[in-house]
Amino acid sequence: MTKQGSPGGTNLDPWYDNYADRTAGLSASAVRALFAVASRPEVVSLAGGMPYVSALPDELVTGALERVMRDQGPVALQYGSGQGTPEVREHILEVMRTEGIRGSIDDVVVTTGSQQALDLVSKIFLNPGDIVLAEAPSYVGALGVFKSYQAQVRHVGMDAEGMIPELLLEAIAALKAEGQRIKLLYLIPNFQNPAGVTLSWERRLRIIEIARAHGILIIEDNPYGLLYFDQPAPHAMRSVEEEGIVYLGSFSKTFAPGFRVGWALAPHGIKEKLVLANESAVLSPSTFSQSVITEYLNAADWKGQIDTFRVMYRERRDAMLEALDDFLPEMSWTVPNGGFFVWLTLPEHLDSQSMLPRAVKELVAYTPGTGFYADGNGRHNIRLSFCYPKPDFIREGVRRLSTVINAERALLDTFMQSTPAVMPLDRGVVNPPANIN
Amino acid sequence: MTKQGSPGGTNLDPWYDNYADRTAGLSASAVRALFAVASRPEVVSLAGGMPYVSALPDELVTGALERVMRDQGPVALQYGSGQGTPEVREHILEVMRTEGIRGSIDDVVVTTGSQQALDLVSKIFLNPGDIVLAEAPSYVGALGVFKSYQAQVRHVGMDAEGMIPELLLEAIAALKAEGQRIKLLYLIPNFQNPAGVTLSWERRLRIIEIARAHGILIIEDNPYGLLYFDQPAPHAMRSVEEEGIVYLGSFSKTFAPGFRVGWALAPHGIKEKLVLANESAVLSPSTFSQSVITEYLNAADWKGQIDTFRVMYRERRDAMLEALDDFLPEMSWTVPNGGFFVWLTLPEHLDSQSMLPRAVKELVAYTPGTGFYADGNGRHNIRLSFCYPKPDFIREGVRRLSTVINAERALLDTFMQSTPAVMPLDRGVVNPPANIN
Repeated sequence: MTKQGSPGGTNLDPWYDNYADRTAGLSASAVRALFAVASRPEVVSLAGGMPYVSALPDELVTGALERVMRDQGPVALQYGSGQGTPEVREHILEVMRTEGIRGSIDDVVVTTGSQQALDLVSKIFLNPGDIVLAEAPSYVGALGVFKSYQAQVRHVGMDAEGMIPELLLEAIAALKAEGQRIKLLYLIPNFQNPAGVTLSWERRLRIIEIARAHGILIIEDNPYGLLYFDQPAPHAMRSVEEEGIVYLGSFSKTFAPGFRVGWALAPHGIKEKLVLANESAVLSPSTFSQSVITEYLNAADWKGQIDTFRVMYRERRDAMLEALDDFLPEMSWTVPNGGFFVWLTLPEHLDSQSMLPRAVKELVAYTPGTGFYADGNGRHNIRLSFCYPKPDFIREGVRRLSTVINAERALLDTFMQSTPAVMPLDRGVVNPPANIN
Repeated sequence: MTKQGSPGGTNLDPWYDNYADRTAGLSASAVRALFAVASRPEVVSLAGGMPYVSALPDELVTGALERVMRDQGPVALQYGSGQGTPEVREHILEVMRTEGIRGSIDDVVVTTGSQQALDLVSKIFLNPGDIVLAEAPSYVGALGVFKSYQAQVRHVGMDAEGMIPELLLEAIAALKAEGQRIKLLYLIPNFQNPAGVTLSWERRLRIIEIARAHGILIIEDNPYGLLYFDQPAPHAMRSVEEEGIVYLGSFSKTFAPGFRVGWALAPHGIKEKLVLANESAVLSPSTFSQSVITEYLNAADWKGQIDTFRVMYRERRDAMLEALDDFLPEMSWTVPNGGFFVWLTLPEHLDSQSMLPRAVKELVAYTPGTGFYADGNGRHNIRLSFCYPKPDFIREGVRRLSTVINAERALLDTFMQSTPAVMPLDRGVVNPPANIN
């Protein structure tokens, strides 16, 4: 007889009592249902992080597909190595060299998007209860992975130059005093998701030093690094530290996410385990996808194509900043020098999550800040994406958002005159300096 | 300071002490290094399980690729749903109907090969120490996944009709008496990997009944079902039981593995968790790969193509059986009615693993039986694959193998005259009836 439901019998899943403990850490986003609504064409979505793949000329892809079938045929259709093809790993080295990284193809593991690299690193390092340090806020998909292995995330505060080394030292000291085991320091140094800020070169060096001193492995996640707007980001942390960093990269933003090709560059011992974990998870990453990437990078002017993306995304970033200046001059936000995201801070008595249904009713969608914290913070923050809608739509989206925010403020001002005006400040939230508002 | 090595300082990985407990369960195959040698063209490999993709006409693939780019362009290049596209899930239902399965597209989750479906099911169900019941022998890649989640595998004996229900009942009773928690029953009912046998219809029904009575979820893994030779396999177990089975399917053997598209068909509550686990692991399965499969199934005579595969693999199976009859008449082996594998039983004093280097020296490779057991059994078994080499090469491979086996027997007969002639019988090994030798 299969076991029936949860205590009280309200759960209809007959397998409810059979799940692994870690499965409690898998939860659907609170805003998932709403996003289904938000995908209607009349809604301006400033919510997703989808690259604008229509800016990739069709003929660059079809050319690569033709060459794959002509030159690689049966090999591209077959199973491959659990580490990925040597050809695509060579190209990955070439891509990483543009950010100052030197390595060997032996140290690269190709994965099903860099999300899977993050999953595999987590799988091989995280015992239940282990600590992962991450920026405050941090990438929602990474927080989900850490949780799925029953690790605990502790956020470390940032400012406009990224994670603050002194706060990192404080967090480490406090956790060690509690007897916690800190395993990983997860960072998105360039054009961070969701905060849009970039870790300065001085801080990169300082944080590497701190991590080394405390035996903490750094995960340097860098999907957006090549998509800078005004000046290139500082070199990767991996360019100056090899043994203490697993570097994650992706073709999802510089080429196309539909092929699901990402990678990890890891110290030798870790790489060996990542390959085994990859084989266990998927046998081998898609040979066909890797062949397409290889042929694209072989023949196309991929650096020129990235320039095209950079110009396009910069225009969209500019449209968003201008619209914020025009429509929400009293708010504060970050000014990204690359990537896809602006992080908006609302007045402290506004709640971005409860406001979302009203925003969708006004035909604009965004991502509430709470998803980017493992500790319940982020209620008066919003992540705004400028990657997908065209500039006019971005402007219109921000205008609609301002309508919602202003109505919300007026409503709350009326009702809150007799309640305390200030809610507790979120810990570690980005506080942009006054001059970047 | 990162921690240095293992006790005694012999391990050079500075992160050695930081890995998760489960990472101890990730181990490279003992024969991996040898297989690198065995991939030389002069070696006849009867070792791998690679489908013969060259039998898939190029124009069927290039036609699908052209239609993907023409009709789906930016959508195929973009991120997609964590559950997979509705279009490919519709086609998956159509494929499953040929084995008697009815379901809704809501119940299908598309994965990065069915290996990943197995990984995700294991992730959501298996706590360290939990028991998975599996055939003896069973698929090496499944044993690896279970081990990577620190589960214990208990094998249940088979004969020419598949897993023996009485032995299953005995195993369950013994495990329950030990206080063990049995979570999953993993089965490959059709043309099993590695044993090549098929679970009879009567036993399917009996095993479903037993699993239901004991609250054990069945994983029905069916990559080879449509590749039958003489008569179709019995209908899937999932055709008569819905709530107690997660069914796994794959396009790797009926189309091409290079796209990495497999799926799970699961009861509602489990499906919900699989989607979340899939999103956590890879965000979404490759939209491009799913689009290619969709366009292939839309336009090509895919059933006719499977017939082509069936005829080709049957010819190879026949070549192998004939060669075994001619060159190794004193051995016993299974006679598969589909799939890729024959399971050969050597005289009990021969060790298939220690014999492998000599076989490779004679330019033939195979997979030793030990990989297919979690408990050290299988030393005098060999898995022979007939899927990849052409019939002449299969015959030559078996001839070379017979040379190695006969030399080994002669050698051991000389040295073992003064030692006990019989080593302990492996538990649960396939004992084919005399008439199928």
